[in-house]
Amino acid sequence: MYRTNTCGELRLANVGQTVTLAGWVQRSRDLGGMTFIDLRDRYGITQLAFNMETNAPLCEQARKLGREYVIQVTGKVIERSSKNTKIPTGEIEIEVAELTILNEAKVPPFTIEDQSDGGDDIRMKYRYLDIRRNPVKNNLIMRHKMAMLVRNYLSDRDFLEIETPMLIKSTPEGARDFVVPSRMNPGEFYALPQSPQQYKQLLMVAGMDRYFQIVRCFRDEDLRADRQPEFTQIDCEMSFVEQEDVLNTFEGLLKHLFKEEKGMEFGAFPRMTWHDAMRRYGSDKPDIRFGMEFVELNDVAKGHGFGLFDNAELVVGICAPGCAEYTRKQLDALTDFVKRPQVGAGGMVYVKCNADGTFKSSVDKFYDAEALKAFADKMGAKPGDLLLILCGPAMKTRVQLCALRLEMGNQLGLRKPDEYAPLWVIDFPLLEWDDETQRYYAMHHPFTAPKPEDEALLDNPSRWGDIRANAYDIVMNGVEVGGGSIRIHDRTLQNKMFHTLGFTDESAAAQFGFLMDAFTYGAPPHAGLAFGFDRLCSLFGGVETIRDFIAFPKNNAGRDTMSGSPSPIAKEQLDELKIELKK
Amino acid sequence: MYRTNTCGELRLANVGQTVTLAGWVQRSRDLGGMTFIDLRDRYGITQLAFNMETNAPLCEQARKLGREYVIQVTGKVIERSSKNTKIPTGEIEIEVAELTILNEAKVPPFTIEDQSDGGDDIRMKYRYLDIRRNPVKNNLIMRHKMAMLVRNYLSDRDFLEIETPMLIKSTPEGARDFVVPSRMNPGEFYALPQSPQQYKQLLMVAGMDRYFQIVRCFRDEDLRADRQPEFTQIDCEMSFVEQEDVLNTFEGLLKHLFKEEKGMEFGAFPRMTWHDAMRRYGSDKPDIRFGMEFVELNDVAKGHGFGLFDNAELVVGICAPGCAEYTRKQLDALTDFVKRPQVGAGGMVYVKCNADGTFKSSVDKFYDAEALKAFADKMGAKPGDLLLILCGPAMKTRVQLCALRLEMGNQLGLRKPDEYAPLWVIDFPLLEWDDETQRYYAMHHPFTAPKPEDEALLDNPSRWGDIRANAYDIVMNGVEVGGGSIRIHDRTLQNKMFHTLGFTDESAAAQFGFLMDAFTYGAPPHAGLAFGFDRLCSLFGGVETIRDFIAFPKNNAGRDTMSGSPSPIAKEQLDELKIELKK
Repeated sequence: MYRTNTCGELRLANVGQTVTLAGWVQRSRDLGGMTFIDLRDRYGITQLAFNMETNAPLCEQARKLGREYVIQVTGKVIERSSKNTKIPTGEIEIEVAELTILNEAKVPPFTIEDQSDGGDDIRMKYRYLDIRRNPVKNNLIMRHKMAMLVRNYLSDRDFLEIETPMLIKSTPEGARDFVVPSRMNPGEFYALPQSPQQYKQLLMVAGMDRYFQIVRCFRDEDLRADRQPEFTQIDCEMSFVEQEDVLNTFEGLLKHLFKEEKGMEFGAFPRMTWHDAMRRYGSDKPDIRFGMEFVELNDVAKGHGFGLFDNAELVVGICAPGCAEYTRKQLDALTDFVKRPQVGAGGMVYVKCNADGTFKSSVDKFYDAEALKAFADKMGAKPGDLLLILCGPAMKTRVQLCALRLEMGNQLGLRKPDEYAPLWVIDFPLLEWDDETQRYYAMHHPFTAPKPEDEALLDNPSRWGDIRANAYDIVMNGVEVGGGSIRIHDRTLQNKMFHTLGFTDESAAAQFGFLMDAFTYGAPPHAGLAFGFDRLCSLFGGVETIRDFIAFPKNNAGRDTMSGSPSPIAKEQLDELKIELKK
Repeated sequence: MYRTNTCGELRLANVGQTVTLAGWVQRSRDLGGMTFIDLRDRYGITQLAFNMETNAPLCEQARKLGREYVIQVTGKVIERSSKNTKIPTGEIEIEVAELTILNEAKVPPFTIEDQSDGGDDIRMKYRYLDIRRNPVKNNLIMRHKMAMLVRNYLSDRDFLEIETPMLIKSTPEGARDFVVPSRMNPGEFYALPQSPQQYKQLLMVAGMDRYFQIVRCFRDEDLRADRQPEFTQIDCEMSFVEQEDVLNTFEGLLKHLFKEEKGMEFGAFPRMTWHDAMRRYGSDKPDIRFGMEFVELNDVAKGHGFGLFDNAELVVGICAPGCAEYTRKQLDALTDFVKRPQVGAGGMVYVKCNADGTFKSSVDKFYDAEALKAFADKMGAKPGDLLLILCGPAMKTRVQLCALRLEMGNQLGLRKPDEYAPLWVIDFPLLEWDDETQRYYAMHHPFTAPKPEDEALLDNPSRWGDIRANAYDIVMNGVEVGGGSIRIHDRTLQNKMFHTLGFTDESAAAQFGFLMDAFTYGAPPHAGLAFGFDRLCSLFGGVETIRDFIAFPKNNAGRDTMSGSPSPIAKEQLDELKIELKK
């Protein structure tokens, strides 16, 4: 071992001991008579002291050490004269007697500090230096701890972690697969799993009863800011359970994580149906850290000669508390916000509920004070509040208002990163209509069970949109952290579901035949849930981007700029695989 | 929840309770007045009793249940009149009052029993049924436990599990990569990792100090009986350590696994240099559960006019205790064994040390009793023992004799599956000569450090074969369970190593440039080790084949016969990837 102690553990109690430390030169201060070096490792920073008077050659050697040099020192632990209360080792320093340079270092291309001067691109290219910085390092440590907590919690509850294959069968349904050409079976391909969905269901058929896996998944989708081609799921499945059992089990897991990792305790997580979530927040993943719930205004809005409202399917608004003083400029900015293509509203109506009891709106032409008071009353507004109103087709308008509500939440500082508001969203629709392809798709996946009381509607195509699924999402702070469903374990129902989704018997058999076969040999009732682990970590870290919680992430073009991957491969490799590049 | 209890937990203490169980029909016995059903789930078997006298309709319903039907029953726990001492629930049964069929089941294609009537192929095709059998189920449960033990042990010792990418850069060196075409970067490919070797070294450069990962790895090699295209490693790396620290750490891990999983305690694992292992056992992974060590016989064998021995580089033998009575037929079978192409010896010489003190050999023509006694003395043979002797080029002959030694170990029952003999093999050669390509290859990998005292030999190509590496394997019962090395952390030495391996500056930079770059920014001394987790599990399970410890393995053609993977993919998929199949 190159050290007797880490750089994070020496205290006053160790004074007098002779120790050996190894680590990186974080910083060096030459005060003439003394040279001080902050020595860093994963565990902390310890100050090294070199004295020009007592050991000039050593001190001079120390002065030549560059940033990020790897060194080993031996010396005595002494009490510091001027203590640093900011770090746990701040009461001591090492009076160095021996110094060995283990490795030199070029000057790093950005500062290895909590606040680095390096931009995103250069930090990604030199990710191994970026990880030396506390924020990234601590994220990875937290991720490790979370994974350990999850595993021990589930294992203690009879869940078995079972590894499922990474080289599986490609299924055209759903997102795009990454594929892997098989050399031994020319012309054939494996796919990388988008999730172990079918395998975990097979494990239930196999009687494994409770399965989990922290597992890498892959999706070849066009990447958005916060999406990675490979990501990690906490994937779970249970047999002989009902929805209530699943919700309680994984609510318990989340509470355990909150308690152990953040010291936070929660009562029962609230639950909301998908329909309520859409009606009250315009989102299936509402951020309920703050109120500002939607108020539907058709009855007070219509019939005043304002055509936009009169002709709209829905007039709906939120009440922004204490914002009546918003300036023209601020209001214009909000209007611009909702008109951005990402939001897509035609415009925004505001009503200021002034502190003096008067009203001022952008539609004063059509609504007198009394009419505006009706808006305010309906929305429970107090003097000083600001009403923001959108109108149009119901669902579309709700989604637009959701964006505005979150923007107001941001502006008012109501979305605090250290506050957590978990929520179960339940009773999702089973099927989702797609205008483009003019057909229904499974909202979760084709194995999700309809609510038994809605099952009969499967025979009535005109009511397919009304069928509710035994599907649930766990949502936190406006982010979907996980989701799952009761699975169909009955083959007849599964076949009906496939037909609903436009599969022929043949295409269903070609894709899912082995799962369907399995269901004929005694499939138990089962259900499951999967958490997005990268996302869960970033949420616990109070940070938006999942990249900060992945050791070696890829950029938005799917590239690892550090290793230069993907890259061309040798012609011999292609030949062996019996494939060629298309010109 | 469909049950109040599992099928494995009810005991006499529960008598009188009303319970609900759910599971699979293992077996049904119709005794006229009574029908008994064994209900099975992951946790055990509980007997259900249906009484024709008290509830005829229910009993008749029960009689119709087929094997592997999934049912739910409610009833009272009662004491059995004839107890079954073989199962933990054998003192009670359930007097069933309600029965629900949760799912029917076709008759399974093989029996769901510990000893199944199903062959390998059919059990693989219906793996979800195979897993219902205790042997496979228990293997997967053991694997889960082992993974938990490993993770908690390493985590308690400051190792962090850090996930490394699965979509990485392809490197032609070493085994063949599986590659993944990148749709977003046409003409370019990711590779699936053969191991996270470079990433774990980068994590050391990044200061993470102690890393581990239980991680899937991929090798597109022609499959042998016990090799899978995807396999799992316990991958580890540590900074600021010397070989002794690594060996102690992972010896500790293995001892922990033995203690927790098998209740076995071990003293310090023995260590043997690679050269000694080859000389004494003809293998770099000797099975030291039994002796029968090699004895070199040149001095007693040569000079008696037996040309084969006289002209051989090495005459070497083993002493098989108590085998002097081997028949002609048995001896011929041994000769045939060593002459098989897989072993490749030209022949075998035997010397019987008869119980009466006489000798009988296959080379009596050349060796008289005195000469044969010299063999026996040299080999420490006792009356009743059998000497088996091979000759030829030294290394080749040792490897052949190794096969014979293991065969004799098998024949004599000395290789007991419930006995464990761990061994560190150390001081591997750094480089291995390849006759075919007429060049040296890295025996471990290009990042393995030579022993400092042998480093100078790198400047002398004629001595390359003599350079010892700071590399080590952990071997158990003749199987390599893990291996690793001290890594090169110095860029100059690493460059020299690349040149030795025939890389140009350009080809080294193209493949390993980012790792080499990283080493210029302050790489700490570091070292690591990786265990083959599938193999470790099978060894703990006392079984030869790793397939039994993988939930969904592939066959020797790399196929999953259950899902039918790999398979052709749609032309649109190929088009999107800008690749086409070669005609």
